[in-house]
Amino acid sequence: MLHIHVLNGPNLNLLGTREPHIYGAETLDDVEQKLVAYGKEHDISFTMRQSNHEGQLIDWLHEARTKADGVIINPGGLTHSSISLADAVAAIAIPVVEVHLSNIFARESFRAHSTISAVATGILTGFGTTGYLMAAHALAAHLSRTEKG
Amino acid sequence: MLHIHVLNGPNLNLLGTREPHIYGAETLDDVEQKLVAYGKEHDISFTMRQSNHEGQLIDWLHEARTKADGVIINPGGLTHSSISLADAVAAIAIPVVEVHLSNIFARESFRAHSTISAVATGILTGFGTTGYLMAAHALAAHLSRTEKG
Amino acid sequence: MLHIHVLNGPNLNLLGTREPHIYGAETLDDVEQKLVAYGKEHDISFTMRQSNHEGQLIDWLHEARTKADGVIINPGGLTHSSISLADAVAAIAIPVVEVHLSNIFARESFRAHSTISAVATGILTGFGTTGYLMAAHALAAHLSRTEKG
Amino acid sequence: MLHIHVLNGPNLNLLGTREPHIYGAETLDDVEQKLVAYGKEHDISFTMRQSNHEGQLIDWLHEARTKADGVIINPGGLTHSSISLADAVAAIAIPVVEVHLSNIFARESFRAHSTISAVATGILTGFGTTGYLMAAHALAAHLSRTEKG
Amino acid sequence: MLHIHVLNGPNLNLLGTREPHIYGAETLDDVEQKLVAYGKEHDISFTMRQSNHEGQLIDWLHEARTKADGVIINPGGLTHSSISLADAVAAIAIPVVEVHLSNIFARESFRAHSTISAVATGILTGFGTTGYLMAAHALAAHLSRTEKG
Amino acid sequence: MLHIHVLNGPNLNLLGTREPHIYGAETLDDVEQKLVAYGKEHDISFTMRQSNHEGQLIDWLHEARTKADGVIINPGGLTHSSISLADAVAAIAIPVVEVHLSNIFARESFRAHSTISAVATGILTGFGTTGYLMAAHALAAHLSRTEKG
Amino acid sequence: MLHIHVLNGPNLNLLGTREPHIYGAETLDDVEQKLVAYGKEHDISFTMRQSNHEGQLIDWLHEARTKADGVIINPGGLTHSSISLADAVAAIAIPVVEVHLSNIFARESFRAHSTISAVATGILTGFGTTGYLMAAHALAAHLSRTEKG
Amino acid sequence: MLHIHVLNGPNLNLLGTREPHIYGAETLDDVEQKLVAYGKEHDISFTMRQSNHEGQLIDWLHEARTKADGVIINPGGLTHSSISLADAVAAIAIPVVEVHLSNIFARESFRAHSTISAVATGILTGFGTTGYLMAAHALAAHLSRTEKG
Amino acid sequence: MLHIHVLNGPNLNLLGTREPHIYGAETLDDVEQKLVAYGKEHDISFTMRQSNHEGQLIDWLHEARTKADGVIINPGGLTHSSISLADAVAAIAIPVVEVHLSNIFARESFRAHSTISAVATGILTGFGTTGYLMAAHALAAHLSRTEKG
Amino acid sequence: MLHIHVLNGPNLNLLGTREPHIYGAETLDDVEQKLVAYGKEHDISFTMRQSNHEGQLIDWLHEARTKADGVIINPGGLTHSSISLADAVAAIAIPVVEVHLSNIFARESFRAHSTISAVATGILTGFGTTGYLMAAHALAAHLSRTEKG
Amino acid sequence: MLHIHVLNGPNLNLLGTREPHIYGAETLDDVEQKLVAYGKEHDISFTMRQSNHEGQLIDWLHEARTKADGVIINPGGLTHSSISLADAVAAIAIPVVEVHLSNIFARESFRAHSTISAVATGILTGFGTTGYLMAAHALAAHLSRTEKG
Amino acid sequence: MLHIHVLNGPNLNLLGTREPHIYGAETLDDVEQKLVAYGKEHDISFTMRQSNHEGQLIDWLHEARTKADGVIINPGGLTHSSISLADAVAAIAIPVVEVHLSNIFARESFRAHSTISAVATGILTGFGTTGYLMAAHALAAHLSRTEKG
Repeated sequence: MLHIHVLNGPNLNLLGTREPHIYGAETLDDVEQKLVAYGKEHDISFTMRQSNHEGQLIDWLHEARTKADGVIINPGGLTHSSISLADAVAAIAIPVVEVHLSNIFARESFRAHSTISAVATGILTGFGTTGYLMAAHALAAHLSRTEKG
Repeated sequence: MLHIHVLNGPNLNLLGTREPHIYGAETLDDVEQKLVAYGKEHDISFTMRQSNHEGQLIDWLHEARTKADGVIINPGGLTHSSISLADAVAAIAIPVVEVHLSNIFARESFRAHSTISAVATGILTGFGTTGYLMAAHALAAHLSRTEKG
Repeated sequence: MLHIHVLNGPNLNLLGTREPHIYGAETLDDVEQKLVAYGKEHDISFTMRQSNHEGQLIDWLHEARTKADGVIINPGGLTHSSISLADAVAAIAIPVVEVHLSNIFARESFRAHSTISAVATGILTGFGTTGYLMAAHALAAHLSRTEKG
Repeated sequence: MLHIHVLNGPNLNLLGTREPHIYGAETLDDVEQKLVAYGKEHDISFTMRQSNHEGQLIDWLHEARTKADGVIINPGGLTHSSISLADAVAAIAIPVVEVHLSNIFARESFRAHSTISAVATGILTGFGTTGYLMAAHALAAHLSRTEKG
Repeated sequence: MLHIHVLNGPNLNLLGTREPHIYGAETLDDVEQKLVAYGKEHDISFTMRQSNHEGQLIDWLHEARTKADGVIINPGGLTHSSISLADAVAAIAIPVVEVHLSNIFARESFRAHSTISAVATGILTGFGTTGYLMAAHALAAHLSRTEKG
Repeated sequence: MLHIHVLNGPNLNLLGTREPHIYGAETLDDVEQKLVAYGKEHDISFTMRQSNHEGQLIDWLHEARTKADGVIINPGGLTHSSISLADAVAAIAIPVVEVHLSNIFARESFRAHSTISAVATGILTGFGTTGYLMAAHALAAHLSRTEKG
Repeated sequence: MLHIHVLNGPNLNLLGTREPHIYGAETLDDVEQKLVAYGKEHDISFTMRQSNHEGQLIDWLHEARTKADGVIINPGGLTHSSISLADAVAAIAIPVVEVHLSNIFARESFRAHSTISAVATGILTGFGTTGYLMAAHALAAHLSRTEKG
Repeated sequence: MLHIHVLNGPNLNLLGTREPHIYGAETLDDVEQKLVAYGKEHDISFTMRQSNHEGQLIDWLHEARTKADGVIINPGGLTHSSISLADAVAAIAIPVVEVHLSNIFARESFRAHSTISAVATGILTGFGTTGYLMAAHALAAHLSRTEKG
Repeated sequence: MLHIHVLNGPNLNLLGTREPHIYGAETLDDVEQKLVAYGKEHDISFTMRQSNHEGQLIDWLHEARTKADGVIINPGGLTHSSISLADAVAAIAIPVVEVHLSNIFARESFRAHSTISAVATGILTGFGTTGYLMAAHALAAHLSRTEKG
Repeated sequence: MLHIHVLNGPNLNLLGTREPHIYGAETLDDVEQKLVAYGKEHDISFTMRQSNHEGQLIDWLHEARTKADGVIINPGGLTHSSISLADAVAAIAIPVVEVHLSNIFARESFRAHSTISAVATGILTGFGTTGYLMAAHALAAHLSRTEKG
Repeated sequence: MLHIHVLNGPNLNLLGTREPHIYGAETLDDVEQKLVAYGKEHDISFTMRQSNHEGQLIDWLHEARTKADGVIINPGGLTHSSISLADAVAAIAIPVVEVHLSNIFARESFRAHSTISAVATGILTGFGTTGYLMAAHALAAHLSRTEKG
Repeated sequence: MLHIHVLNGPNLNLLGTREPHIYGAETLDDVEQKLVAYGKEHDISFTMRQSNHEGQLIDWLHEARTKADGVIINPGGLTHSSISLADAVAAIAIPVVEVHLSNIFARESFRAHSTISAVATGILTGFGTTGYLMAAHALAAHLSRTEKG
């Protein structure tokens, strides 16, 4: 059984209430339930977390290093400026998939750059909460490929 | 009666002791006393807070969403780089006025850009601690205008 | 009694008729009346002027140098390109407060830069016509502080 | 009958004498005569003006707002830096066509940018004095289309 | 009798169906009919073509070199990046007028630059399908002037 | 049953033979077989195409407009410069998912910009050939969501 | 006898009173007297003018075209942004020398660029009011050289 | 015997007729004859091709991969923007020499950048049609060196 | 006896385990032991701390202001973006030496800029863990010089 | 009696023979003779030197520090890149006037920037060899002013 | 018989010993022997020189002006910054071919710009020491063409 | 015993006399004496040299390659522009430490970039003459580590 840590950055606790025309009406809890359902089918367990603190997210990435098979991260507004978060992603040996709910390339120009993308395994953007399921699929595929290879 | 949250960012706890030729000799406590006096006259109460942690300021902005009529924020050095703080300002439905003690346009060039200005209700810069009173005035005017309109 | 010159730049004569969704429905005359009322309470007199000519505004700034205690200026479209206007502000010894009706940081990117801000005493943006009253307040506070200091 | 104001900016009074290899040998008076002849055929009257003063051109744009059906403007060197002129074009409700005699894209790079283009109805460049007639044609077509639509 | 080739670039085959709020409801066939009608009055014949292939447009420009008196080109999305198309325009000795339906300066910033403008005889933008007729007018004027001169 | 067109741009015909350390050892035929297998399970049919010609890809996008429910596109090297391809994506009303095999953000800096992303429904990068399956999943989810909504 | 027009731009009327640590204590009248004295020795007469209006300076440049042998211009703050002034300098056939009192290259970076320099005969910067005499010397030398050549 | 494919991009079919002051009076046929003569002496055969279509050039590069020992390419205007062409050069295992007739560094600034140079074996620019012979020489030297090494 | 606070930023807790080819195999504890040994010889005591939280590091800098003679700081990934950290360094009156383990100028370009360098006493980069000892040496020299001077 | 060192940089030994349409037909010897004649009248002696070596020019600037009252320098091509030369100008206490024969602002854009201007006393450009005499005049005026002041 | 000066810039004396994976194992002496052998066949003599001093290379270019028919120059690291060297190339009337051993476009981005290319006859890069022979060939072809023409 | 060459670039011969508020009052001879004293304690000998000529510094770097164990270099003003000096550092196999007396990051922005840093072993800036001793310490540590490793 795979274990995946799902880390959510600043303001994602407001998901479902904040600017629903951009981010949709589902909450983080809704996403977690979907992931759990998906996990049951595909033999994956998930640990879902959210913080508005960059330092906390870095601590969690370090923890995932020994406790998880892979990480799904939606770094929120830290995506565009946090080099420390990117360093943490690079520092841990497990695969990390970067997810964004909205299409960050169709919004303000400063959202088109991610410090994390260059060190992530892969990036998914614009698929709403479906993106989390797709990321789980991608991590499972990646890990099974690595195992065999 | 209006209730306004006043949030102060990194290093503003040193106000009055740090580089007084730029920031003046008054402390945050002095500012709070001025605001309280002003509030008595104009029927406004204030909650004054300071933190050096970006995440804490975001948590407080989320809290203000349901507990305050408006926010005055002096984001300190986070002004120039924090997209997460700006996202939090945009995510809450209440008016937010951005205040800076010094004239940020007359200092180093990197201080001339604020990530928050584009989502703030209005911006005040260069008026020293008087700026906090002006911001309270502006929020009251803004809220009475909105109420009527 | 303080005397303040209020200078308004290009296109502000159209205030109240031009793009009211951005600039509001009040005219410059409405603003003047508000200022006069405010002045009566706070012992301030105002001279209100408007011109579409950069040169005229510079002439008026020079005149204010000996005839006014402070200046409130809304330079309109000259804000973003006129170095001569900024030089005039720097050249006169009295305090000058820069005011913009709309939040210039929430509009086209070329509006985010002001040549005048670096030499102004303070800047106010996004508070609509209330900004003129706040500027008067700020000038009075600034001048009383300077007098004492 | 349509009435069109034709506004010409700095240095266009020298047309026909200044750098004829770039601007041709016709004067503004020649252009006016051509327009009058064209107007007779197409039931359009024209008011032709020129000034080296930005402020004067803004005053005239404001005047056109109530006195003309449309404006043809050749802003000369103000094309590339005047935000106030662009604001005036945006502020008046009537259509404004921007005309340049020479192909501004085939000259110095600073001439390739116009502050006015983004708020103009349409832009014509490189057709010499014929451009004024084409602009009149375009304004008539535009106005008849709007009327019907 | 003049003969003019009218070349239309990528996606213009969808004219009338694609984003009508930007490009209008007329199709390329409608434009052709207008041109033919205009041509009858002014003794001009037209060859109207469209391709989504840069190479095809270059081949047609080469062909126009010996078979046409002038070219009207609307290069669509190639406007902003094709140096080869610009080289082809420069390489043929006949006048080429560049036409855009929408005001390219009022849209995304990458649309404000045209590789072709610097080598075109003149540019017309923002006049909808009327622009094709104006371009025909301009070519006729240009060619009669050249003939005499 | 959904029908999805899968369009592949320049050099993707060499997949499996070209720089396998970047792009992997699977060929486009292998990808097609995977998609067909996936389609059988999920009731989706696929049309797989590849061309080195920008114009051909635009023609196919136009065709998909009426013949497909959605498009998966891997534009290869055209990703970074083709505005015409992006215009075609914007012009057709059906959802388009952009896929890249390698993580384009971990390679040369010019690969970090895509002209297409801003008009795509979503973007997937760095997941190798698994990305095509994920894109199919995303399109199905998107279409079922739209249908219901 | 040579006749030279000396044109001074915005804020130079304040010379001697404004920021004397940068611009010195001499007034424009002092400069004129020096020039007159110099002119007596070298058979040159001068017409000295100052305006804060760009349009006025352009009008005077046009006038100098037929009434003067050469022009000395200190464009003040217009130096850095006025393309119209530069166009006027280019449009008149007589030599124009650009003078700045302070060393514009040792001040704010925006002062290092002059729109006028590229079309001026020569540029002098940093020599205080002595620069006007040097400019007169240069014009005399230039005109005598041209006469002979 | 070596076999070299010589590929020529957009507008090179006009060689000898187009702007001869830049590109000289020889045609592509003249160049081919020179190459054939040179090949007889040095035991090299050549296949000479030209197309205005990027896609065609990519197809030919793919073909050369198995049919030629090396490629000489003059990409014309595609030099400066085609990433797909550069990807094709990188994708094939044989050496590719880039040739330009004129000195691209002494012309417009956009011609100074080549997307292909970074993946080419070597670059030759400014030697006119002689450059093709030099490229043949270089390829022969390169291949003999590789063979031995 | 001198007392020096040694502050380490994000991800430095992984030192010795993370990317050892860049950062070496020593841990922070190893560094502390070296410093203690060095301190015994040179009469210096050290307080060694690490945090992944920007706010924590700012709090510690404020604490050092009254509790330490000097600070050695390795800000990790915060080096390149944290203005708040730089403000804190500027706000405290004691000397601060910036240390980096790897040569930040020989890595990704975004690592070449430090917000802190401009307000630090001195900077050391590329010397591995030896850099901490050198920084202690530099602080001791600096403080003894200041004491005497 | 004043003593002035006149230093000339790379390629100025070719003056009179190199590109005479830009630099004129006079040689450095001609310039020296003019200066000597001028010096006799105004009680100034000159030491004229030229080198193509940056290091030699720096050595001469150091020498001038104790042996000359002022320096006239024409740094040739070093003007645009040598920070060491600018450091040497800043390091010596005597006034240094920078002279260029041609108008460097009317040529290639890279010639518009001088590393030396910010530390020079004043700059003269575009006056041909007359510029050397004007510089001598300026130095004499500057030194007499300093002496008195 | 042609005479060609071959000038080599900084660090080329280390050729064969320095970074052989980039620059190859041949020394400058080996290159000279190849050139001499080539010269015997084609009736060309060579003078081979190397210096680490910019000034020395400029002196040699001046000397070549009267003593050589053409120059081959490999400016080493001066390629990317020396305007004086470029001025010297422009100042002498004879053809100059620029050669680089490695493909400068496939290395660090600062190596992609050459100050000399715009004034050179032609440029060769990436062909190792074979480039010197090709340059000799090109100079001979160029000179014979010029002679006849 | 280690042998270290200490190379000093342009204007450092003026150390102690030039701008002492930036560079301190010690001369290069004082620094040499300190190094000698330090060397006696740590068994290191030093060769101290200074030149204003870039070429001379390159020659000395080449010499150090076989005659020294390591190099300390303070390149002065060449730091910011000399690619040849950086190439020389890269070309020699021994460790090179870059030293600057003042904090180059707290001065003019052009001083913040060093061409040499990317190829140096480590960089020290802002420690005054103490920096030379620290560099010696670092070289000794580096060499002992390399020896063992």
